[in-house]
Amino acid sequence: MKSKLECIPCLLRQSLNAAKIVTDDPVVQENVLKSVMRELLEMPLSYTPPLIARTTYGIVSEITGCEDPYREIKATYNEVAMGMYPRLKEIVDESDDRLLTATKLAIAGNIIDFGADIRFNIEETINDTLTREFAINDYSEFVKSLVGSETILYLSDNAGEVVFDRVLLEEIRNCADVVYAVKKKPIINDAMTDDAIFCGIDSVAEIVTTADTPGTILERCDPEFVDLFRSADLIVSKGQGNYESLSEESGNIFFMLLVKCPVIADDLGIKMWDAVLKRK
Amino acid sequence: MKSKLECIPCLLRQSLNAAKIVTDDPVVQENVLKSVMRELLEMPLSYTPPLIARTTYGIVSEITGCEDPYREIKATYNEVAMGMYPRLKEIVDESDDRLLTATKLAIAGNIIDFGADIRFNIEETINDTLTREFAINDYSEFVKSLVGSETILYLSDNAGEVVFDRVLLEEIRNCADVVYAVKKKPIINDAMTDDAIFCGIDSVAEIVTTADTPGTILERCDPEFVDLFRSADLIVSKGQGNYESLSEESGNIFFMLLVKCPVIADDLGIKMWDAVLKRK
Repeated sequence: MKSKLECIPCLLRQSLNAAKIVTDDPVVQENVLKSVMRELLEMPLSYTPPLIARTTYGIVSEITGCEDPYREIKATYNEVAMGMYPRLKEIVDESDDRLLTATKLAIAGNIIDFGADIRFNIEETINDTLTREFAINDYSEFVKSLVGSETILYLSDNAGEVVFDRVLLEEIRNCADVVYAVKKKPIINDAMTDDAIFCGIDSVAEIVTTADTPGTILERCDPEFVDLFRSADLIVSKGQGNYESLSEESGNIFFMLLVKCPVIADDLGIKMWDAVLKRK
Repeated sequence: MKSKLECIPCLLRQSLNAAKIVTDDPVVQENVLKSVMRELLEMPLSYTPPLIARTTYGIVSEITGCEDPYREIKATYNEVAMGMYPRLKEIVDESDDRLLTATKLAIAGNIIDFGADIRFNIEETINDTLTREFAINDYSEFVKSLVGSETILYLSDNAGEVVFDRVLLEEIRNCADVVYAVKKKPIINDAMTDDAIFCGIDSVAEIVTTADTPGTILERCDPEFVDLFRSADLIVSKGQGNYESLSEESGNIFFMLLVKCPVIADDLGIKMWDAVLKRK
């Protein structure tokens, strides 16, 4: 998905948010903001939003001297989500359709997003996602595809959300070998290897790393990862960043996300806050 | 109130919104966005947000060739609000305290704001504002001040909202001479003389004009208006723009607004969506 003009003020706001997490110094904050503005003035909109975001968040890190502004926030949400894990399992255990419920929970977990311009409530989102229909619903294709798959590549999105992914992985790991992909370097609140291990993913899937961008930009991933991507029977792609970077890639991809941005809502032809399970 | 760094991405988003109302041409939209970015890179944050907004909206008009992007939106909301007028009057008639109810309705009408980054529902806002306490509540001082005043200057904010102002004006016009101030030139969806007349203000107050900025920047108003401002016994200041431009001015000013921006919430020490009746 190409960037839209709306992405520019949004990425600028995100850069300022990240800078303010790192420092209270208004001079540094202003330096970040204006450096990002100068960069955005030159940035081609043909780039995907995650590719531009890599540059803008890179500027934040360079100027503030902090490689991982969201480190504490990620740790907090890992703990919050781990605290919810027993209840998430209960919800699955008590449901009529374990796989559907676990899929909905994995999508609900996508609310834990510090790039999007939102304030969120995890409990409300869970209830909401469990009781609503998907706005785009390729669930039956997902089930069919799952049955025939030997290798599944699961592209994670955010820290904390990983626990919700684990609940889904625990339902599908008997069907196939699952590889869980996290970011190689810090970017916004995206999950990394430590987050995956903290949330117990290592007990249900192999963990691999992608790159240093939000989403999954194949040109920035190691060749081993690209091989994995090309050979996987089924790919679960979580979140907006992965949708933005993979919406034009080929593969048996199932996008699972909550829509938290009007540009993506428009691209998908649905509304803000809709839950999506869309086959590529 | 000085501008904050957060105002920069917000003003950029506002410029793009305004450009998109005028034209579907992505080249023109991008030209607006980037021209505004270049301007914002040089703009001192010591300026108030309305002063910066005058420049950024000026760029939108210059590049799109449209002096009044919100013309149709203003007309629509004038009609919507006029349609609500009989019900607003009923609410006042049926209330235990006519002045308090009319004051709350005038503040509720401040939701009709196309500068702020919000989606709004007028009906919900009315119910909400009628049933909640003001977050800052100088209502009893307002009542006392009203009783002793011979001249009242009422600084309007948005088209449509004017009808809600009229409901309040009809409660206070017997206490004093009321002058209702609107913008001299189009700026966002701010009310102008035509809007005031359409909404029936000419039957309850004299209508005067301020300047070509959101809010009321005295240095940009005619000397006659400044005299009026300096001599008024009581000034009602509606909305965020007026607060931003007058929070450091002297005068017997009562700010009435709904908080729709985190920078103003922070400046006032209250929360987003709070209703405010604050004496300067």
